[in-house]
Amino acid sequence: MARAAFYEHDKTIRVGDVEAPVPGPGEVQVKIAYAGICGTDLHIYHGVMDQRVAASQIMGHEVSGVVSALGEGVVGIEVGQMVTVMPLDPCNACPACEAGYSHICLNLKFLGIDTQGGFQSYWTVPAHTIFPLPETMSLKRAALVEPLAVACHDVRLGEVKAGEFVVVLGGGPIGALVGLVAQNEGAEVIVSEINPDRIRIGRELGLEVVDPNEVDLVALVNERTGGAGADVVFEVTGSAAGAATMTQLPRTRGRIVVVAIFGHVPPVDLKAILWREMKLRGTRVYERQDFEKAIKLASGDALPLDLLITGIYPLERLKDALTELEQGGNAMKILIDVAA
Amino acid sequence: MARAAFYEHDKTIRVGDVEAPVPGPGEVQVKIAYAGICGTDLHIYHGVMDQRVAASQIMGHEVSGVVSALGEGVVGIEVGQMVTVMPLDPCNACPACEAGYSHICLNLKFLGIDTQGGFQSYWTVPAHTIFPLPETMSLKRAALVEPLAVACHDVRLGEVKAGEFVVVLGGGPIGALVGLVAQNEGAEVIVSEINPDRIRIGRELGLEVVDPNEVDLVALVNERTGGAGADVVFEVTGSAAGAATMTQLPRTRGRIVVVAIFGHVPPVDLKAILWREMKLRGTRVYERQDFEKAIKLASGDALPLDLLITGIYPLERLKDALTELEQGGNAMKILIDVAA
Repeated sequence: MARAAFYEHDKTIRVGDVEAPVPGPGEVQVKIAYAGICGTDLHIYHGVMDQRVAASQIMGHEVSGVVSALGEGVVGIEVGQMVTVMPLDPCNACPACEAGYSHICLNLKFLGIDTQGGFQSYWTVPAHTIFPLPETMSLKRAALVEPLAVACHDVRLGEVKAGEFVVVLGGGPIGALVGLVAQNEGAEVIVSEINPDRIRIGRELGLEVVDPNEVDLVALVNERTGGAGADVVFEVTGSAAGAATMTQLPRTRGRIVVVAIFGHVPPVDLKAILWREMKLRGTRVYERQDFEKAIKLASGDALPLDLLITGIYPLERLKDALTELEQGGNAMKILIDVAA
Repeated sequence: MARAAFYEHDKTIRVGDVEAPVPGPGEVQVKIAYAGICGTDLHIYHGVMDQRVAASQIMGHEVSGVVSALGEGVVGIEVGQMVTVMPLDPCNACPACEAGYSHICLNLKFLGIDTQGGFQSYWTVPAHTIFPLPETMSLKRAALVEPLAVACHDVRLGEVKAGEFVVVLGGGPIGALVGLVAQNEGAEVIVSEINPDRIRIGRELGLEVVDPNEVDLVALVNERTGGAGADVVFEVTGSAAGAATMTQLPRTRGRIVVVAIFGHVPPVDLKAILWREMKLRGTRVYERQDFEKAIKLASGDALPLDLLITGIYPLERLKDALTELEQGGNAMKILIDVAA
């Protein structure tokens, strides 16, 4: 029996039977094993994206699973193969696509937001979104590849190099992953986080986490860098406090990477950016090379990814999982065990 | 007789005799021909920089002149040589200097602001700040080398390439120079300016200038770029309106260069920057290669620089020149004829 969880309207989830979608030409059907809950899913659940999502929306875009059927013309992918999905479907015709940035296509369809998603037994997606996984990889870990690819993209575009000093503002799932990836590149990393649970989990992950309400972060960074300032600052809070802090930390010609999607237009100290000739850039989702790197990292032992998974719920209990996530910091990454 | 103009306090200028400063070891004395008035000089005149400038401050840092005396140990510079001055004196010991960014040294002395400046008959400066000029160069044009070097720095760090589409927000002296230098690199340039006099002067300089109160700038840029957006946007207004507009114009992965020194902390749409993965950077003053490029450009005929000079006053009338400049747009670059 194929099952799916539907977002109906503000904080209402219905779980029910669904027709397993038959793959059309160029499509692949995946039997979903695990699907992680993203902050965006929580936004949808709260009704704030109702203008964008369709009625009876199946959310979920951080998946692992096994190929269960192939549409016409699909080559290089086999039924039974363990896979994950890079949930981006670009138009391939807009100026962004033409310039080589199809991952942020001006008409991008984000699978699971602009189309039905992975909180269902069988998910059918375009073949170009399928990434095969090593056979030895845990399917739980594989459900973390998508958020890990975000972190790989951020760290790559932040041009983090071994020996550099990195500050990550915000120690939620993405902030923690950015910190872990930067550390794995050989950088010295401090994560700034105010939530006690997230501070604890970050430290368990092997990160140096400080609470900026208890520690003078600017003074600490200056002390640790001989007065120079940080090489790279990642803004992952989406808060006015983060936007204010991010310009106080970089060294001369240092870099700021804006990772969080701000829900408001915050004040930004452009004079500070000018004075030290800082460079700021926005980063969004990932490119194919980031997905490949994330698969490589997640299939090895370099990162303690299992510690990020703080809960696993069956599909029937998606609402409980969303409720736990919205209640705060002690939940980091919650997976839905779709096949349970 | 050596004369100097002293800023005493809010809007008070005193012109009087002064001892011609004798060059110490490693210093060069320059008989000043022309000295341009910078926006910063106007700020000093208005009293807003009283915490930084000394009492009886001699302002002025955009100069041309002839070497009149050499201090001990100065080699490679000769009395009688036509020169200009790059008015930056770094500490060579701070983290910025050590990283190779001595032009924005953390302890930078800006000559003419943090030291006595060029609104005097003889200006004595460190030998490393002296740049020889071609003998055929007009000394009036040579006084424009410093602001032109600012524009060369901005355009270089903005990585403007031939065929790119560039928008310059603000058509004052620096904005106009940025537009001219970008155009000279082969870019297609639109300058956005609201002041009617500056619009007229910008057009006389050969720039395409539009009034954003009359033209929908975003629509115009999209129309001219096939919906893609601008490759580079220079923010040279220092206004909240400019900070709001700068994020609406760039293409995917387009660049924003913050040139203006903001006197306030404006709202900046970080979500827009993230959404198109834009890159923003601050730029400040210039490096030696920018000064060299500015000298080369100013000594040739590529740029109609003479049209930027809208007034020339003798030193005795510095206050009248400052008054004209503060009254608005029909003044672009005013030179002080120090030797008159």
